[in-house]
Amino acid sequence: MESKKFLLQEKDIPEAWYNVVADMPEKPAPMIHPGTKKPLTVEDLSPIFAEELARQELNETDRWIEIPDEVREMYRIWRPTPLVRAEGLEKLLDTPAHIYFKNESVSPVGSHKLNSAIPQAYFCKKQGITNVTTETGAGQWGAAMSLAAKHFGLELAVYMVKVSYHQKPYRRSIMQTYGAEVIASPSMSTRAGRKIITDHPNYQGSLGTAISEAVELATSTPNCRYVLGSVLNHVSLHQTVIGLEAEKQMEMAGEYPDIVIGCFGGGSNFSGISFPFIRHNFSGKRNTLFIAAEPESCPKLTRGVFHYDFGDEAGYTPLIPMLTLGHNFAPANIHAGGLRYHGAGSIVSKLKTSGLIDAVDIPQLESFEAATKFARAEGIIPAPESAHAIAAAIREAEKAKEEGKQKIILFNLSGHGLIDMAAYDRYFAGDLANYSVSQEEIEANVADLDKLI
Amino acid sequence: MESKKFLLQEKDIPEAWYNVVADMPEKPAPMIHPGTKKPLTVEDLSPIFAEELARQELNETDRWIEIPDEVREMYRIWRPTPLVRAEGLEKLLDTPAHIYFKNESVSPVGSHKLNSAIPQAYFCKKQGITNVTTETGAGQWGAAMSLAAKHFGLELAVYMVKVSYHQKPYRRSIMQTYGAEVIASPSMSTRAGRKIITDHPNYQGSLGTAISEAVELATSTPNCRYVLGSVLNHVSLHQTVIGLEAEKQMEMAGEYPDIVIGCFGGGSNFSGISFPFIRHNFSGKRNTLFIAAEPESCPKLTRGVFHYDFGDEAGYTPLIPMLTLGHNFAPANIHAGGLRYHGAGSIVSKLKTSGLIDAVDIPQLESFEAATKFARAEGIIPAPESAHAIAAAIREAEKAKEEGKQKIILFNLSGHGLIDMAAYDRYFAGDLANYSVSQEEIEANVADLDKLI
Repeated sequence: MESKKFLLQEKDIPEAWYNVVADMPEKPAPMIHPGTKKPLTVEDLSPIFAEELARQELNETDRWIEIPDEVREMYRIWRPTPLVRAEGLEKLLDTPAHIYFKNESVSPVGSHKLNSAIPQAYFCKKQGITNVTTETGAGQWGAAMSLAAKHFGLELAVYMVKVSYHQKPYRRSIMQTYGAEVIASPSMSTRAGRKIITDHPNYQGSLGTAISEAVELATSTPNCRYVLGSVLNHVSLHQTVIGLEAEKQMEMAGEYPDIVIGCFGGGSNFSGISFPFIRHNFSGKRNTLFIAAEPESCPKLTRGVFHYDFGDEAGYTPLIPMLTLGHNFAPANIHAGGLRYHGAGSIVSKLKTSGLIDAVDIPQLESFEAATKFARAEGIIPAPESAHAIAAAIREAEKAKEEGKQKIILFNLSGHGLIDMAAYDRYFAGDLANYSVSQEEIEANVADLDKLI
Repeated sequence: MESKKFLLQEKDIPEAWYNVVADMPEKPAPMIHPGTKKPLTVEDLSPIFAEELARQELNETDRWIEIPDEVREMYRIWRPTPLVRAEGLEKLLDTPAHIYFKNESVSPVGSHKLNSAIPQAYFCKKQGITNVTTETGAGQWGAAMSLAAKHFGLELAVYMVKVSYHQKPYRRSIMQTYGAEVIASPSMSTRAGRKIITDHPNYQGSLGTAISEAVELATSTPNCRYVLGSVLNHVSLHQTVIGLEAEKQMEMAGEYPDIVIGCFGGGSNFSGISFPFIRHNFSGKRNTLFIAAEPESCPKLTRGVFHYDFGDEAGYTPLIPMLTLGHNFAPANIHAGGLRYHGAGSIVSKLKTSGLIDAVDIPQLESFEAATKFARAEGIIPAPESAHAIAAAIREAEKAKEEGKQKIILFNLSGHGLIDMAAYDRYFAGDLANYSVSQEEIEANVADLDKLI
């Protein structure tokens, strides 16, 4: 635990977000309007999202998008975040690899999610919107959005995936402490919720269903918009503050990563740590390996199909060109609730299908084994989601040992696990299991996608 | 939430702890050996504590005690901690006061307790000790000690007050994640525990009982010592890193506190924030008001008697000259478990009886009301213990408003409350109550103290 920190000053908080699409050798396919089957416009998106966020979503040309002062001002509460050389973990693994992690767990809500919650609340407020809705899986995004909404004086309703609502009651309490309304999803408050409850009375919910409910409420409420914590381009955009800071900090450490790793649900933290580095791959200056670490039980990047699909269960969203398991895929109730999402955003999907990034799937037990090693070696108890990135980093560090190579590994610690101790309890009690997905299940789930477009 | 942070560099981590006793105009009365009735010596203490800690405990002459490199190295994981100007809270209260807080919640275990856990583990290890025991109330100290013990390769057993063991199961999980053994106290594993379970089968424990059990196990186990998270002089000593950093940071802010506030259980965080500032009162340069904020249900500073008393329930410890409610006092089961202790350490007791510091008692509901205001204004959910300091700061800020004075208020945010969300849930549900203590109860509890010495 002699781990060395690399610290920036407040003036080093980035002044612009990095829009990776501008630099991509091939652009992602456009999102499609499910009715007209035409590429989406800002006008199509504006009834759902604040206009500025809709513009960011479709912006393919501006490499840098300025961060408003009001947003940077709030970033200052906890940013810049530390970059840490995990010397305790290196010693434990007896590896020649140098392992670095960007510590996004230091935000007041305990995760990277606040990086996007703040600008989303800000742009809504600026447009005169008074009410917002969103969904949350494990509750990290919901907690972040609750704090951001409170700050900018917006009313917020959060649909929380039912299994997490019960597994993680204290994330619900956090949202309520910040003043948000929290509803277990599926709920009776929306058509989408009522339908799935009627069809499957014991269904414990998924991010896809919660998104349907939140979008339905937003579009049926005056002066209300929907905000999303992952998947979309503008969310990835906001999260690039992670990688932009990490780039400077790796310079301070005098090294450059051979491997960059993030856990993967919809893509927000993986994009955040990766995109600022991947631009040096595009330019040919570097040849870094990017690894998205997804759960074995929700393997869209490693085993999904590339197809247009809905972002939500009920089919309210635009059609997104994504690596997907099908929008009705019901993932196992793993404790990494933030990774239980059926698809990947269009940028990551394009990078993956083009072979520009890699992905691995991590069994639940391996993720908790890695988390426990990390906690004992580095003192920080990681979120079950982030534990997937740690597991992937440990695999790479062990590979480096076998090969006798001094690899430089950087991963994103997206959040701490202090609200997830029930999951650790169950792990230590031997009550957790691995959940794999059969090929038949995946094929059945994606079989109807061709009907969409 | 435009709150301004004042940040130090790693080189600003103090190189020495401040030993306030050396500067006190009158020294505290000595601790007494209960058998011989003579002042304690290092030899008396050494069977219980590591020798260097015993020396620190009795050191009345050295103003500065060097912090070993190995300890500073570990402090670097999260220190220096930020000082924050709570502009969000100021705005909410519409007060002319400037409110600052030192944010000790950023440590990997979420509280200031790690400041002393690290040196205590270090000095034990250095002496060749292999096993340590301790007690914990809410679990903040136990979590810190578990992490420190793991780092220095010590085996640790933690007696956790039974009510907290059940109220806060996730702090127990945190200790287990770091590899410690956790036992609910009172337990059957010690004579002291067996006796109180037999006499009071439904007793939910107290810090006093847990200390008895931990001391008994330490003194009956080979190569084992006991470590304590509060009350004692050497613990207060280690905690002065808080105030020493805050002093530099207030200079950066260009202000000096009129009022310094800490919550109060045994005294560790109050001492930590206060002692470095109080020395300027001793020298006549300043006239700061120091306020210890204790719970209404455990009012040793505001309503206790000054007398020699045991530090634990069973009477295993030396006799300490303290403001006390009697070592058998059974405090109400409030959620601020870390403040449920019957007495104050000898230094604070002396400062209080000499009129050099002040104290207030805070009802439980007021503490949660203050905590909720703070969370919504500043984004950080405070520990129920720290909420007492916030409540006292809010009282002072409101007084400043009434008086139309621009008071400078500094309080210590000793920890975050992310593991205490069950308490917040109960508060929002209207399930929490205030608990006052009758004068008769206090008098009955202290009636037998004269028999001790």
